[in-house]
Amino acid sequence: MLSNIRIVLVQTFHPGNIGQAARAMKTMGLSDLVLVRPRCYPDVEASRLAAGAEDVLDGARVVDELSDAVADCVQVVGASARLRSLPLPHFDEPDAMAETVVGHARQSPVALVFGRERSGLTNDEIRQCSHQVSIPANPDYGILNLSQAVQVLAYEVHRAWRRQPASDYRYQRPAQAEPPTREQLGHFQAHLSRVMASSGFLTQPHATTEQQLQTLFARAQPSRRELSLLRGLLSALEQHIATDLSDDKERSRNRD
Amino acid sequence: MLSNIRIVLVQTFHPGNIGQAARAMKTMGLSDLVLVRPRCYPDVEASRLAAGAEDVLDGARVVDELSDAVADCVQVVGASARLRSLPLPHFDEPDAMAETVVGHARQSPVALVFGRERSGLTNDEIRQCSHQVSIPANPDYGILNLSQAVQVLAYEVHRAWRRQPASDYRYQRPAQAEPPTREQLGHFQAHLSRVMASSGFLTQPHATTEQQLQTLFARAQPSRRELSLLRGLLSALEQHIATDLSDDKERSRNRD
Repeated sequence: MLSNIRIVLVQTFHPGNIGQAARAMKTMGLSDLVLVRPRCYPDVEASRLAAGAEDVLDGARVVDELSDAVADCVQVVGASARLRSLPLPHFDEPDAMAETVVGHARQSPVALVFGRERSGLTNDEIRQCSHQVSIPANPDYGILNLSQAVQVLAYEVHRAWRRQPASDYRYQRPAQAEPPTREQLGHFQAHLSRVMASSGFLTQPHATTEQQLQTLFARAQPSRRELSLLRGLLSALEQHIATDLSDDKERSRNRD
Repeated sequence: MLSNIRIVLVQTFHPGNIGQAARAMKTMGLSDLVLVRPRCYPDVEASRLAAGAEDVLDGARVVDELSDAVADCVQVVGASARLRSLPLPHFDEPDAMAETVVGHARQSPVALVFGRERSGLTNDEIRQCSHQVSIPANPDYGILNLSQAVQVLAYEVHRAWRRQPASDYRYQRPAQAEPPTREQLGHFQAHLSRVMASSGFLTQPHATTEQQLQTLFARAQPSRRELSLLRGLLSALEQHIATDLSDDKERSRNRD
């Protein structure tokens, strides 16, 4: 599905942007790159900034006309920082655009088209698109660097793809530590209650305070190990409480 | 609200990445940048690549420790390409992260922390965070360039901000052409039907075919002007149909 999604860069001025775009594409699982009359390509700057994504550059097609780049596509989305008065279907939000792109890409090639760094796409080029999209941005400074725009729209495409049931994307998750049983959690809560009382923090049982602290610890979702550490700390503190009580008794006896 | 959202870059190696990050921030309405022991800053590369976002660089703080950068923050999100086994609350999806960040940022500073280009953040630095987030990516090539990661997370923050009722973000929309009235649309549909019949395309009234084409045109949501163009075309075609009919009649008469 992602292999059906093509990135088309029209008349890119800086070869470095081509390299960074290739890298951005690869991080998001895209590999089909077409360059329409790039000013300066191939170029050592492009290869240098592609940094590990040279395979995307190697597979890139270079063509003379935008129509050659998109002839086989069923959807062509022109990325435009400045909207034109052209009454082309327009996506306010890249995520909505990405949903449709990923939908079409199940069966057929689709293209995202990016224009020149300074002037974007011409009206004629936009007419070769089926849709326009802009990246909502700061109205005072709203033009993203070309490879950044590629990164953001590729990211949205990957996001829409992840949400498809068929994508089976696996999240990287930190290893889950073993959680405690309800019984172990109960032992901890009882231990905490005893320390709250014996420390003098609670001079009489106070259900609300006890519950509030117990809720905090429950919400922290301590692992078995963490619970064990907490209980060790409580036990160490209890030693001091017991010692102080003995000392108090000792001093009382000595005074009498 | 957006002014409460801080970007923290830890020990950035390439000053160009600092410049590109400043630019990425500004496109998304962020302006609070803090640099923790940057290798090489200030630097002409940073300024060059900031390209219009020099004000973000000018306002940037440079500090020695991450703790100095985030002391006043109520939430600190560490952006990590490689998840650690540290059992810190983790966001699978940057959009979920951004919702919480924008929520907290209504009242207090929050920070997104990015690490070194090659090695990311140390475990000690992650321990200074309240949350971790990673950018879901290609498992075979999943590490975004530093300034690209800043752009993507800043973009998600801006997106979460837009969705807040209080943000009053205004989309750039192409000028809407004037739509036709129902009556004008009706006249066009009747005109189209007549031409479908008189052209011989429909030898007898065929409701389904007529409706299908009418639905297509309705879905196109023609403007008043476009409808007028279409009717002009239909009229021009009708001239030829009328002429042909006259010629046919003429030829018939001559034969008799």
